[in-house]
Order: sequence, then C-alpha cells, then structure tokens
Amino acid sequence: MRVGIGILGGGTVGGTLARKLLEDREVIAAKSGIDLELVRVAVRDLSLPRVFPASYATDRPEDVVADPSVDLVVEVMGGLEPALGLVLAALDLGKPVVTANKEMVAAEGPTLFTRAASKGVSLLFEAAVGGGIPLIRPLSESLSGERIRRVLGIVNGTTNFILTAMESEGWSYEAAVAEAQRLGYAEADPTADVSGADAGAKAAILAGLAFGVWVGPDRVFVEGIEGLDAADLVYARQLGYRVKLLAVAEDTGDGVVARVHPAFVPLDHPLSGVRGAANAVFIEGPDIGELLFMGPGAGGGPTATAVLGDVIEAARELLAAAQVAPRIRFGPGTVLDFADVETKWYLRLEVVDAPGVLAQIAGVFGEHRVSIMSVWQEGRGDAATLLLVTHDAPESNHRAATDALRHLDVVRQVAATVRVVTDEP
Amino acid sequence: MRVGIGILGGGTVGGTLARKLLEDREVIAAKSGIDLELVRVAVRDLSLPRVFPASYATDRPEDVVADPSVDLVVEVMGGLEPALGLVLAALDLGKPVVTANKEMVAAEGPTLFTRAASKGVSLLFEAAVGGGIPLIRPLSESLSGERIRRVLGIVNGTTNFILTAMESEGWSYEAAVAEAQRLGYAEADPTADVSGADAGAKAAILAGLAFGVWVGPDRVFVEGIEGLDAADLVYARQLGYRVKLLAVAEDTGDGVVARVHPAFVPLDHPLSGVRGAANAVFIEGPDIGELLFMGPGAGGGPTATAVLGDVIEAARELLAAAQVAPRIRFGPGTVLDFADVETKWYLRLEVVDAPGVLAQIAGVFGEHRVSIMSVWQEGRGDAATLLLVTHDAPESNHRAATDALRHLDVVRQVAATVRVVTDEP
Repeated sequence: MRVGIGILGGGTVGGTLARKLLEDREVIAAKSGIDLELVRVAVRDLSLPRVFPASYATDRPEDVVADPSVDLVVEVMGGLEPALGLVLAALDLGKPVVTANKEMVAAEGPTLFTRAASKGVSLLFEAAVGGGIPLIRPLSESLSGERIRRVLGIVNGTTNFILTAMESEGWSYEAAVAEAQRLGYAEADPTADVSGADAGAKAAILAGLAFGVWVGPDRVFVEGIEGLDAADLVYARQLGYRVKLLAVAEDTGDGVVARVHPAFVPLDHPLSGVRGAANAVFIEGPDIGELLFMGPGAGGGPTATAVLGDVIEAARELLAAAQVAPRIRFGPGTVLDFADVETKWYLRLEVVDAPGVLAQIAGVFGEHRVSIMSVWQEGRGDAATLLLVTHDAPESNHRAATDALRHLDVVRQVAATVRVVTDEP
Repeated sequence: MRVGIGILGGGTVGGTLARKLLEDREVIAAKSGIDLELVRVAVRDLSLPRVFPASYATDRPEDVVADPSVDLVVEVMGGLEPALGLVLAALDLGKPVVTANKEMVAAEGPTLFTRAASKGVSLLFEAAVGGGIPLIRPLSESLSGERIRRVLGIVNGTTNFILTAMESEGWSYEAAVAEAQRLGYAEADPTADVSGADAGAKAAILAGLAFGVWVGPDRVFVEGIEGLDAADLVYARQLGYRVKLLAVAEDTGDGVVARVHPAFVPLDHPLSGVRGAANAVFIEGPDIGELLFMGPGAGGGPTATAVLGDVIEAARELLAAAQVAPRIRFGPGTVLDFADVETKWYLRLEVVDAPGVLAQIAGVFGEHRVSIMSVWQEGRGDAATLLLVTHDAPESNHRAATDALRHLDVVRQVAATVRVVTDEP
C-alpha cells in the first residue's frame, strides 16, 4: 500500500533519505509490503545542487506538511523552531512524524509525545541519539522489562575524534580541533560539540527512555572538553584509563540523574576502546547484565538509514489503522541535583615539594569527607606533581575540597579535575 | 489494561520470567501502561522446586493455551514438538505468541509467520538469537531500510568460552570442554553447541531477517569446533588472528548464503575481542557502515528480559486492537550452494623438508585455481610445518585442492584447515 512521504530539510540526511527512497522503492516494497512514495522535500535554498531531482524541492515546508498526498512527515531540519511548529502541525493533521532532531525531542519531548498519543499516530526518533545505531527502539521496547541501572554513552563523534587524536597523536586540544575541522568531523564553530551541549540533549533523551522520567536538557549537568590538557590524557594512560566525553544517565536508587563530562574510563572497559568518530552506548541492568551498541554516530548514510527504518515502522502502523499506544510513559519521578550525585574524581595538583605537604592535602580531603583511593607523586626540583584518584563522594564535597585546596600555600595549582567512571559505581 | 500471560516452560528462562512478572508488575504498568498478569506456567515436573509460587504451575501446557484468561502465550520449552503444535494452537485462538525457540523459528518460520499474519496477531522471538542482546528488532525494523551485505555473529556462548579458554590458557579442546561443563557453560552432552547446530539455527534466522529470504536450517553449512587443534589457535595469533566460531549470513550479489564454521578473525576486528561466554553480532551495509551489538547471549536473566520486552510489545499491539501487519516479508530469492561460495582458507601442512616441496604444493593450488596470499615455513629436522593463507576461492576448489594435497608424497598430513573471515570480503 502507498504511503506518501514529505521531508522537511534537504541537507545531508534529508538528501540521502530522498535518494534512498527513490533508489530502493521496489526493494523496500518487496521486503516490507509498503510502497513509500517520495512527494516533496523542503529545502532552505532552492538554488543549491541536490542529490535528488530538483522537481521534488520546495522552499515552503508548511506546504509539505499540508500537502494531502503527504501521509507521513520526516523532520530533519534540526533546531527548535520552525521544526517544532511544523511537527506539531503534522501531528494535528493526523500524520505520523519521524524526526532526527535531538534538540527538539530533548526540549519538547513530553509535548510531542502527548500530542502524538492524542492523535493516535506515531512519533519516532531513532536517529536523534547515536545516528545510525539502533538505540531508541532497543531501549524503549526490547529493554522495557528491565530495571535499567545506568546508561553510559559516547554519543558525540566530534569530541571522540578530538580526544582520540589528542591521545594517540599527542596533539594539543587546539591542533586536534583543527584536524577535526579539516576532515569535516567538526563545524567551523565547534561549540555545540566541544561544550557538551549536543551530548547533553542526547543524555536527556537516554535518561527519559531508560527510566521513564523526563529529565529535560536544563537538568542535565554538562561539562565539555575545552578545558582538557593533553597532559591528563597521558597521565590517564599511566593510571590505566582513557579520557572520554561520556553521557551518563543513572538511577542511583534515590533518583535519576543525567550528566555529560570528560571521564576517566578504565582501559578494560569496552567504551575505552571506542576510537575516532564512532559512537557507542553501554547499558547496565540487574537481569540483562551489560550490553554494548557500537557504530557510526553521524553521517548522511547511517542517519538516513535510521530515519528510513522509522519511516517503514511508522508507515506500517499507519496502514494497520491502529490507535498507536505510546510506547513509554513518563512518570513524575525524582531528578537529582548534580550537587548530590556521588562520583570518583581524578585530580592533578602542582605542589611544593616539601615535608608535610601530603599530610596537609589529605587533611583537606578528610575535612570535606572525600576519601582518597590512590596517590602518585612525581617530583621535579622544588615542585612536584601529585595525581590523586578519590573514592565516591558527592559533587558538592568534591567542589568544596577543591576550593579549599586552592587556598593552601603548598598547592601552586589545581591543574586538572576529571570524573572517573568505573564498572563499580 | 490487563493482559493475562501464560508461560509454556518453567525452566531457567520461564522461571525467571515468572518471577519478573510477579515482582515488577507495578513498575511495568507505570512505565508501559500495561498490566501484565501471570496466569499459569506449564512445567514438565510438578515436583521440582520453582522460583515462583507453586500455585501457578501446571503440567498440562494445552490447558495454558486454552485458558480463556490467558491472552498471550510465551513459549520457552525449546525443541520442535510439542512446542510447535502449542504455538500454532495459540495463534489459531488469536493469541499473540512470544517465543525464545530458535530451533522452531529456524525450521518453521514461514509457517509461523503466515499463521500469525492470517490471524492478525504478533509472533515475536527476540530471545531466539543472541539471548539478551536486542538483535531481531533492530534487524527487522531499524535496519529495514538498509541493503545489508553481511552479518557476522558469535552466537554461541559455550563455544566462545571454550575457544577463549583454549587460546588464553593454552588448554586442549577436551580440557576446555570439561571446564565449560564444570562452570555450567556447557551441557553434559555438549554436542548441540560444539557441533555448530545451535549456531546454525541462529544463522538461518539472521539470514532470513537480514535478506528477506528464508534459508532454513537445512541449507546452512555447519562445521563445529570439535576438530580444532590448540596449535592452530597459537598459529592464528602469530598470523594476526583469533579463532572464533562464526555464524555468517551474506548476500554475495549472486544470492544468499548462511554458514557456521570456525574462522580466523583479524585481531583488529571487534569480534576477535569478544571473550568468554559473551555473544556479539556485527552488521555491514553500504549506508550504515558497521554496527556491533554485544552482550550476554544466554542465561535466565538476559533471556527472560528479552522475552519480557517482546511480551510488552505484543501486549501493546494486542491492546491497540490492530491488525498486526507482518514486519518482514520473505521472497523466493536465491540461496547459494556452499560449494560455490568463495572464502579464504588457512591451511597447516606437515611436509617433508626437501627441495622442490613448496613448488609441488603451489602447483596443486594453481591447478585448482586457488591463489596463495602468504606462506610461512617452520623447519624441524627432516620435516617442516607449512602455514598457508589463500585468497578467495570457491569452497569446491578449496576441497579439491586439499584432497589433491593429501595425495602428494611430500605432504605427510593436512593437519588443519580453517576459513578466514576478514573485513574485505
């Protein structure tokens, strides 16, 4: 049966999707029994060349949504507006929507899910997290019977490329960013990636799906990789770790927390082996044990493939004439303040090399109830570098201890602090 | 809304599922909006202790299927009959079925899918391949828009445990099997695992889902690990490989082939790093690139979690009162004879150490149009060990060449042949 497809956005993902729909129409029909007919593609600039015939292009996205021969709308424009208004308009017309828009889903998820449910149509967003890696469907369907404890993700390929280059080539942060830009892995303005904002939206979505509690992007603690020193990547290796920008969604027992920050990951953990621009997500639960999903986190081909999988599924549900029940419901739940969340910290201190220094430093940690797991000291002349890894302590205690360290005469500099994420939380 | 659940099979998976349904009923209802009520569990022997209350147990599985308060049937007995008859009876009553039975799905997939489609109910089998790893849904839904080229899987934890122990501990095959039995990873009679039969059924299912062509277990080429010599695991490492029992489903362009055999896997391939009883599946396609799914391939907790995910999805579809359209259709397609399929081979030959030996051996390969990629020779006294890796050649050519080698006077023994699976097919 025929389903007319309208695409909002004619960039890399939208263009690749249009090409796949045109090229693979018969293969898809044979495999799924559904005839997907591309109707229109809304592009920003009609004068640019496209990988699909110009006759499909229009610069009026609202016309695509309203077109009666469009039965299903794909939104791959990105950003909040006008995407949100167009998606809500499509849902109001009873048209299923497939989107790859992490920002929109993270910020307006509950609005979108409620609207879709009230209209009895599908709203699918497999490509919003992890690009081409099937994650959303496994999390919200296959694992719906598991009390997931923690989700750890490398969900931003740009920053993983930069960190891999810094570590394996010994490059500075600036040099690695420049190389990522040269190869097309980073934008001219890389802020959304390196600040952790992109990963933050994805962490909010992962937490919502894993725990049925909508965290929202504003409640996600986000720290980027801009402040990382290449020296700490070297020290990480000496201590048995690699540094990764992790998105963490966790149910601590007291509540749910979502956070993004650089993290020391043990060398024997599967996530520490994820190199270059790849993405991976690691899921832990009492019955399932440990699951790893790894693959391409971005790019036109992978992302368009994930979108197309959603399109086929949404078309299937549309043709089944089902009142589509929402796949996951969101309860009130408790979202924790990050200040109360316990983590281990790695600290690099530049200190005076004199008797009694370690005792003073240990004293500060003790006052703030942070206990130290291990200490390494490298002397050099009258100064020394001290590397410490702590046991778990609340974020607020770590911060207070670090502030107090800065005021010690014997501490010349708190040169680095990075959270440590291990198998044993 | 309430959905009554009947379970056929009260072993590890059925028992764990019953426990989860009883313990997590409220959590699941809050998250999915569906009230799953356990009604009955059919067990083989009522006198055995269970992890769920005895009041749920019955030894009459046909009564569970027929019970009007059972809306959905879970089949976790395994084996062909009586499982198949019971599942068809449930579908005929319009009850959705969730099964973990790889044997039944591999052998009778088309019968089951057709019957379910004609009754408009779901038949889900996520746990049939890869235990707790979500694979079936990603393959049949998320990747339905991709022209998958190849699926490589480590889908039998028992044999992966044995191979890992042989390689890392230097144990003989017999010692590794005994240790696997001692730890509960292998049955008292390990034949179904070590012969490759278990992996063969899974390869048939993976090929069907990846390519929309039902291969069926009888068309799968299967070679087990019984004949492996620990020496070849050592040589594999020297040549840059690890030996894994791989399930391979491939679309060569000429047709589809499914096969299971020990394989040399390059050390830098993600599958070579899968250790112990873990499972993993690696999927390749032109748009998606490469995807890896890794996790627990067996065990009550992971498998019951996968089954429960299916139960929630099937219940959701039942409550949506949808005519459930089949997720994937199977076409006629071409299933290749394994004799025509091209692979690379590793061979270990025990030969006489004399001038002209290599020329004779190379001549035999040339006559059978098998070209040699690399040769290593280790002399010892008047004998020598020759390790060869070939380029791609059809299975039938490899076999004819190997037979001819056995008739050469200078070849004392063809001590081992193992197929090589690389990134570049």
